[in-house]
Amino acid sequence: MDRTRTPWERCVEFHGHECPGLAVGYRVAQIALKELGVERAQDEELVAIVENDACGVDAIQVLTGCTLGKGNLLYRDYGKQVYTIGNRKNREAIRIVVKSVGWRQELEKLGLDREGRIRFILELQEDDFCTVQKIPLEFPERARIYKSWTCAECGESVMEARLRVKDGQFVCIPCAGEYNRGW
Amino acid sequence: MDRTRTPWERCVEFHGHECPGLAVGYRVAQIALKELGVERAQDEELVAIVENDACGVDAIQVLTGCTLGKGNLLYRDYGKQVYTIGNRKNREAIRIVVKSVGWRQELEKLGLDREGRIRFILELQEDDFCTVQKIPLEFPERARIYKSWTCAECGESVMEARLRVKDGQFVCIPCAGEYNRGW
Repeated sequence: MDRTRTPWERCVEFHGHECPGLAVGYRVAQIALKELGVERAQDEELVAIVENDACGVDAIQVLTGCTLGKGNLLYRDYGKQVYTIGNRKNREAIRIVVKSVGWRQELEKLGLDREGRIRFILELQEDDFCTVQKIPLEFPERARIYKSWTCAECGESVMEARLRVKDGQFVCIPCAGEYNRGW
Repeated sequence: MDRTRTPWERCVEFHGHECPGLAVGYRVAQIALKELGVERAQDEELVAIVENDACGVDAIQVLTGCTLGKGNLLYRDYGKQVYTIGNRKNREAIRIVVKSVGWRQELEKLGLDREGRIRFILELQEDDFCTVQKIPLEFPERARIYKSWTCAECGESVMEARLRVKDGQFVCIPCAGEYNRGW
């Protein structure tokens, strides 16, 4: 791990720019690691379930090590500022809900520029920013590795669990095409 | 951007560990940037459509700047080593298919350790590693911002486009519950 950059700088580098949404995810991730008493996941030690795909999710990936490519980041398309983070080792999990009242209205009133809004979020008192609740979590299965097969139509390789069948042969989902009557 | 670390080191730091899958994504991302003649996306300048969620996707995020939190990384669950990367500015797009024959069998035969397998992938000739094809791409809409509402049941905030209705009131998807007869 490169110690010459701050955690915030690492989030900004990954996301590509600074923004208030990134600051929200930064706060959530830092609070999650502190509450669970853990470090960033090198492998699949932690699991994060994020209920939106807004900017803050990039800070979650950078700081918790729950990433799309490791399979320990699960996206639920609920449009909510809710984050559940769990530790596989001791099965502890917390649910963090970013508050939608109080600080947001105050921030609106202040009329700050982007830089000021980011600083405001980064410096908010934790109690004003979110609620944190310990919850029981059913941990998802770890990432699995499947055998690969060749699609009989396009000739490209496909993982077994995503094969379909066409004219009695293995094909990929795009080559299988859609068949439904709109039900 | 921190110039003290190599692109590979930045991928490893983000992913949390070195592995052959990460090396595959690293090669794909480097080839994509070269072929399109672009730099990493600071905002949504580039779009990546990845047809798997294996380790390599983390290298795609780090090197192309197409990330889950920016909404310019689209995941299609096809289980294929296929990556489409496009440049919004000039509408150019390429489709990279990682070859499943040749180098994979050679690698298997060599019986290298993890470190050796990674090096093998990083040093492969591009033509042996993948095919690259220019394609027309229908670019997805940019990320939108919606108004938020409060769920009448749990009291949590929800983006408008994900609201459901229950007893005549706005609710979130988890509070709305499921109603279907298994069709």
